[in-house]
Amino acid sequence: MRLSEIAKLFDCRLLGEDKEVRGIAEIEKAGSEDLTFLTNPKYKKFLKGTKAGALLTAKEIEGLKIPQLICKEPYVVFAKLLNIFYPESFPPPSISKRASISPYSHVEEDCYIGDFVYVAEGAYIGKGCYIFPGVYVGRNVKIGDGSIIYPNVSIYDETVIGKGVRIHSGAVIGSDGFGYAFSKEEKRIYKIPQKGKVVIEDFVEIGANTTIDRGTLGDTVIGEGTKIDNLVQVGHNVKIGKYCFIVSQVGISGSTKIGDFVTLAGKVGVAGHIEIGDNITVAAKSGITKSLKEPGTYAGFPARPYKEWKKIQALIDRLPELYEKLKGFLKGKRK
Amino acid sequence: MRLSEIAKLFDCRLLGEDKEVRGIAEIEKAGSEDLTFLTNPKYKKFLKGTKAGALLTAKEIEGLKIPQLICKEPYVVFAKLLNIFYPESFPPPSISKRASISPYSHVEEDCYIGDFVYVAEGAYIGKGCYIFPGVYVGRNVKIGDGSIIYPNVSIYDETVIGKGVRIHSGAVIGSDGFGYAFSKEEKRIYKIPQKGKVVIEDFVEIGANTTIDRGTLGDTVIGEGTKIDNLVQVGHNVKIGKYCFIVSQVGISGSTKIGDFVTLAGKVGVAGHIEIGDNITVAAKSGITKSLKEPGTYAGFPARPYKEWKKIQALIDRLPELYEKLKGFLKGKRK
Amino acid sequence: MRLSEIAKLFDCRLLGEDKEVRGIAEIEKAGSEDLTFLTNPKYKKFLKGTKAGALLTAKEIEGLKIPQLICKEPYVVFAKLLNIFYPESFPPPSISKRASISPYSHVEEDCYIGDFVYVAEGAYIGKGCYIFPGVYVGRNVKIGDGSIIYPNVSIYDETVIGKGVRIHSGAVIGSDGFGYAFSKEEKRIYKIPQKGKVVIEDFVEIGANTTIDRGTLGDTVIGEGTKIDNLVQVGHNVKIGKYCFIVSQVGISGSTKIGDFVTLAGKVGVAGHIEIGDNITVAAKSGITKSLKEPGTYAGFPARPYKEWKKIQALIDRLPELYEKLKGFLKGKRK
Repeated sequence: MRLSEIAKLFDCRLLGEDKEVRGIAEIEKAGSEDLTFLTNPKYKKFLKGTKAGALLTAKEIEGLKIPQLICKEPYVVFAKLLNIFYPESFPPPSISKRASISPYSHVEEDCYIGDFVYVAEGAYIGKGCYIFPGVYVGRNVKIGDGSIIYPNVSIYDETVIGKGVRIHSGAVIGSDGFGYAFSKEEKRIYKIPQKGKVVIEDFVEIGANTTIDRGTLGDTVIGEGTKIDNLVQVGHNVKIGKYCFIVSQVGISGSTKIGDFVTLAGKVGVAGHIEIGDNITVAAKSGITKSLKEPGTYAGFPARPYKEWKKIQALIDRLPELYEKLKGFLKGKRK
Repeated sequence: MRLSEIAKLFDCRLLGEDKEVRGIAEIEKAGSEDLTFLTNPKYKKFLKGTKAGALLTAKEIEGLKIPQLICKEPYVVFAKLLNIFYPESFPPPSISKRASISPYSHVEEDCYIGDFVYVAEGAYIGKGCYIFPGVYVGRNVKIGDGSIIYPNVSIYDETVIGKGVRIHSGAVIGSDGFGYAFSKEEKRIYKIPQKGKVVIEDFVEIGANTTIDRGTLGDTVIGEGTKIDNLVQVGHNVKIGKYCFIVSQVGISGSTKIGDFVTLAGKVGVAGHIEIGDNITVAAKSGITKSLKEPGTYAGFPARPYKEWKKIQALIDRLPELYEKLKGFLKGKRK
Repeated sequence: MRLSEIAKLFDCRLLGEDKEVRGIAEIEKAGSEDLTFLTNPKYKKFLKGTKAGALLTAKEIEGLKIPQLICKEPYVVFAKLLNIFYPESFPPPSISKRASISPYSHVEEDCYIGDFVYVAEGAYIGKGCYIFPGVYVGRNVKIGDGSIIYPNVSIYDETVIGKGVRIHSGAVIGSDGFGYAFSKEEKRIYKIPQKGKVVIEDFVEIGANTTIDRGTLGDTVIGEGTKIDNLVQVGHNVKIGKYCFIVSQVGISGSTKIGDFVTLAGKVGVAGHIEIGDNITVAAKSGITKSLKEPGTYAGFPARPYKEWKKIQALIDRLPELYEKLKGFLKGKRK
């Protein structure tokens, strides 16, 4: 692909000579026929030594000898180019004889159903899906067109999955919520039957070994386009809005509602029965104990506006110094 | 079911007219033939607009027009009613020809053994169990009557599971504990063979993708009636007592002993080789570094009595204010 | 085995009479024919009441009546003795007819391939491997000699696994990294195709339900001899060095580099795009936000040298007391 073609296709400005590139590579590893990219300023230091054939960047880098493609959203262009240079390769459509598919289920055309897949009665699998080996599809589960379910995923009864969804290996969708009633009278624990379901809207991606519990009565919902990383826990009756990023090892307790365009960074914990509004970002390892309404960035445990947290954090770091000051002063006074 | 029947069955007091209810639903969604419930005061605000036919509650709500069922433990009654209105539905007993069951194992009657289940030699599966597709049952594993093992669970050799146990998808029971000896002399790591087993007592429930390691020499034990949520880690030789709640993403390090009626809220971490007494509750995200003996509620990292933690937490929040005060004061002094 | 034999084999000094031991057991449970061990000082209190036949220890215990084996690294000797007394038992080599093995893959001799295993085209499985039921081996995956893959592990395409590696049940190797480009222009999220792979070097052990994402372009690498516990998340393009211990529920964000002989204790979180040098230990629940270069022990969030953290932690504990002092003092002043 020529740089001028890329520039035209993705509305970039080409600085320097036009040439052919044959691949995309990291700054340190790119060769003379590779296009490289600068999307994280941390890697700017590697630019001097790069052997790349061209650079994709948001701002012109002065003094660089190789051609540059300047574009508004280089990371988005990078994503699109990767798909062009290295298209995904999936098994051809086919239904394995080693799969167990209920005669009372329905599989649309152009699907790949791998070995040892189990599809229960009442299940529906849309056109062009990939269901990899070892996947369990429970009763009455619906899976929309073009969805990809990786090996050893377990999908419990009644789950509804939209179009173009990806679920990575080991994820569990629709397991029972953690609901019990402890009877003090009887000194016994009663299980609350979990009778709701999980609804996953279109274009959601769910990471490996993530768990999403079914609702107790209503549904647990993952909104359109939301991306969930590995090892995340989503409790029963949680509603997550559209286009959210839920990073690895986050835990969201039951019945909490999360708006659209929300980012929860790694290891964030969210209490149950609260609400998080739209356009909110929460820093890694924070604990959200109360509803957050105002758009913005939050951090800490309990989570508070990022600036407040920064201030407190700085003072915690200075505690030894403050303590010395105070001690010296109090001693002085005592004399 | 008539309200008067429910009242009689579960020792409730009926306020208002007797009528038929046909289902149970959340306050916001209940229709005129549904019984709804108030177990979390957060949802009291929805009572005004509810279209429910009747309410289950611990205390009489004044000014409410619909009939009320007043009972001591409404959440327990709710659990029991759900089982009556929406009984669980499992596959009929049958043993799949697509399962691989060792001739040297024993499966009691009335079991459902799904496709692609593997049962190794020496295993014993009690009466009326449900073993869903993709489950692995290792050598000499014992599973008690009426237990339910959901899809893709892995149970390593020698594990002992009691009656009425539920294990959700992707859980791993009996994997090797994390035990290594680092030889400084040889600059090499030696694996400590893990020769103990896991014992899960009656009526335990284990969440999706939770991992419970086998003991190094003795056993890892989960006591009767204890409920473990998703993505929990239980280290080797841990003993958990009876009727505990271990919430999602908790991690318990090796050889720690936990008493009865203990609750560890979400993301709590517990150090190894310590003891937690009976009737202890630990707040979410706490880190328990030393043994806790006194019953009560604890929080923080390191975990301490909840009240102490609250006090410290409040002062951390006030650090900027305290700092301003101190600064102003010190400045005043300097003059 | 006689104590004198053990002493000779592992360079220990025998104190007291020579005798036969037939097993190894914990101090509290050992009988008169068992050798017990003291590797954690917490268990010294049990020595008085022990019924063990002999003790393995680093330092002579005075006043103890049973024979003692004194050695430099008792925990290492313990590991070696366990392997002698209780050798591991695996299924005999055999290839199940219920496995699905591509004719375009290659399985070397002396392997056990269990039921419901899937091996895709281009895969290579070295000599003497154990691949347990329900494992998925993707296209072009290489697995080195003598590796053990426990039930229901999923290994995505192109993964390279060394010799003598163990991967526990439910682990997912090579799932897509969490990479997305959010286009503000288009208000849309684009998936960054994940085109790199995972490389696991020799003698690595990976815990149950751990997830290791493939690189975006380059590789995610786990260095020789490194041990990873259960439920750990390793992001795309992470490089972990040799002989590290990564304890349960740790999360390592994308593109971070970790040196050799590093220990990350339970629940540690590591930010992306940073570097952790060799010989570094980080305490449980810490959050590493910046690169750490100096060897040593770190703790806290953000992680700092352990001593600094201890000081700050102690002052946080004393905040109520400091506050009372300050308040009293300020009041005194005001008068």
